[in-house]
Amino acid sequence: MSNVREQIIQTTCDLMEKQGYHGTGLNEIVKESGAPKGSLYHYFPKGKEQITAEAVLQSGRTTAERIRMGLARSNSAAKAVHDFVLNIALHVESSGFAAGGPLTAVAMETATKSERINLACGEAYTLLQSAFQEKLLESGYTKTAANELGTFITAAIEGGIILSRTYHTADPLRAVAKQLKTLLV
Amino acid sequence: MSNVREQIIQTTCDLMEKQGYHGTGLNEIVKESGAPKGSLYHYFPKGKEQITAEAVLQSGRTTAERIRMGLARSNSAAKAVHDFVLNIALHVESSGFAAGGPLTAVAMETATKSERINLACGEAYTLLQSAFQEKLLESGYTKTAANELGTFITAAIEGGIILSRTYHTADPLRAVAKQLKTLLV
Repeated sequence: MSNVREQIIQTTCDLMEKQGYHGTGLNEIVKESGAPKGSLYHYFPKGKEQITAEAVLQSGRTTAERIRMGLARSNSAAKAVHDFVLNIALHVESSGFAAGGPLTAVAMETATKSERINLACGEAYTLLQSAFQEKLLESGYTKTAANELGTFITAAIEGGIILSRTYHTADPLRAVAKQLKTLLV
Repeated sequence: MSNVREQIIQTTCDLMEKQGYHGTGLNEIVKESGAPKGSLYHYFPKGKEQITAEAVLQSGRTTAERIRMGLARSNSAAKAVHDFVLNIALHVESSGFAAGGPLTAVAMETATKSERINLACGEAYTLLQSAFQEKLLESGYTKTAANELGTFITAAIEGGIILSRTYHTADPLRAVAKQLKTLLV
């Protein structure tokens, strides 16, 4: 993959995490990425929908990898999830509440508006949930329990990020960390 | 409050629930609400930011009232929250996954972009959390526990709605309902 292509996708990830799909224009992506305007349509002939779908998948892969690395730090699923959520809290805080939940706004804006982006969001969320599920399976949960809890953990973290970004304090994420630890004991 | 004003706000609530803040234009609000274009600036001289802030508060008040009514159906907080989340699942399903989470996209898109809308989103989420907290207090939880759990429940439901709308199935919300019941026993 060329560097220009990667740069366009990464810039799209960052902008959409902060301001969503409709709030991010192609001109802004060109400007922020430093890519020549012609390269946008060269690499992404289907335009914004294609760039967004690829950015969503990229965000999913990166986030799933971070989850996996984070959860590997402790053998206990309860402690691993707890500490991982506290790290998200720090990340959201240090971004000035502009980052966290890279998929959320795009997923909501496009759920019934673009099939292509919607499918990419589903695939990306599945990557996130799988990372939690694997850890739970390793910790002895049954497949059914791991699937349900993986979904629940993903949901609670997503919601904690929304509340933390809205209130400009990471306390909601810290409450999520604490409650998930209780649930997973 | 005039009917035209109310109609503009309600239309804004509905459109933003489906497609977010940036995805909703003033022309669309005028068209969908059936309000004369001049009335928009008559009632909302500060334009889209003002309409959105008022719509967000309206969504918060309506949703908090629905939570209160839903939770009143059972004395047990665990059963009340469980059944309420199952009702949200039905609501999201019956909308064809276009509705649910009226604040989410707007909150994420504007968290660091509009102070006015951000404050309205915070106020609206506080109304939602309070409705859960009251039920938990009535059920014998301490104030600290009720506050934390109210936040956690709100977060988990928000996330469950995002996943359900993305996957076009209410299974994630049903998983949230089940896990919250376990936690609240």
